[in-house]
Amino acid sequence: MPSKTLEDTVRILARLPGLGPRSARRVLLHLLERRDDLLNQTIAHLQAAQEKIRPCSVCGFLDETDPCGYCTDARRRGDQICVVQGHPDVQAIEKTRLYQGKYHVLGGVISALDGVRPENLRIAALIDRMKDTSIAEIILALPATVDGQTTASYIAGILTEQFPQLKVSRLAQGVPMGGELDYLDGATLAAAIKNRL
Amino acid sequence: MPSKTLEDTVRILARLPGLGPRSARRVLLHLLERRDDLLNQTIAHLQAAQEKIRPCSVCGFLDETDPCGYCTDARRRGDQICVVQGHPDVQAIEKTRLYQGKYHVLGGVISALDGVRPENLRIAALIDRMKDTSIAEIILALPATVDGQTTASYIAGILTEQFPQLKVSRLAQGVPMGGELDYLDGATLAAAIKNRL
Repeated sequence: MPSKTLEDTVRILARLPGLGPRSARRVLLHLLERRDDLLNQTIAHLQAAQEKIRPCSVCGFLDETDPCGYCTDARRRGDQICVVQGHPDVQAIEKTRLYQGKYHVLGGVISALDGVRPENLRIAALIDRMKDTSIAEIILALPATVDGQTTASYIAGILTEQFPQLKVSRLAQGVPMGGELDYLDGATLAAAIKNRL
Repeated sequence: MPSKTLEDTVRILARLPGLGPRSARRVLLHLLERRDDLLNQTIAHLQAAQEKIRPCSVCGFLDETDPCGYCTDARRRGDQICVVQGHPDVQAIEKTRLYQGKYHVLGGVISALDGVRPENLRIAALIDRMKDTSIAEIILALPATVDGQTTASYIAGILTEQFPQLKVSRLAQGVPMGGELDYLDGATLAAAIKNRL
């Protein structure tokens, strides 16, 4: 009985992060009940986003201009590049208002499980940016997961070998703000003790 | 710094049920990172859904044909109409495999808070269907909320006044399957005692 178009659309929407078959159906029905308003706008905005927003050819950040706003901002320091996994990490770091350098979005981390290999990431593009000899520091702001740290080690290895003058740093690991020690996992606590200030 | 197109699209997606600003952003970035695959397909499917899926002119159910599959299905009983708030309720009732009659989708319930008045719902269309004198029973399968029950009472009032022969029924209220009495709210338990079998 259910319409094929409807089921096909639900199946596509269910592939979006945070949505499952049930919530995808709810989203689609909500849209169809507001076809002249919300559905029209959703389609138009997605099309606009598809047309206008592209990854920056320098750093990989998604923006309407190429190079992106961060790469062209003259007020930002040109001697630091912060390497992140994805777009949302840039926004998370920007929120701290602590970092004033440039970015480099890898587009993921090396993962044997997900079949992501170094050549699938924007690592070559990062090496390429090192031609700019004013770059003094690379901050590897990658997730504190096995895959994230493997990726960080891989990139650090290449960079320190090819550019011995370059400072390669990583984010500190330790007790998060408000963290109770007895609720903390052993690995985090061990890192906090090892890296004590 | 963030792109206006991106922010506008996030704002639209955040209006979808179950999504907030944060998850809408995650969805959009996921789509933009898969622009040739998932984003293309999402736009194409939403357009197909918008073109093909329309509310049935008889019962209001969203389908590719008009009248919809339920209205034209000769195996279903024509003497019962089950009145529901929305499309998902039809699917929930179908799953029970207990009901073999027709449906009528109101498109909401009367709500002073949300500014939904009787004329915003498909109530006139329901009264219109009563011209078919073979209809013997209207089942008001509306939510057990204040607004849902207000709507049920309003519709029941009109129907019993205009069609005295018609049987107007509502869903039973009581203890849900697996419900422990001491975890149940007082109103449900009161209803279960009052309507004891």
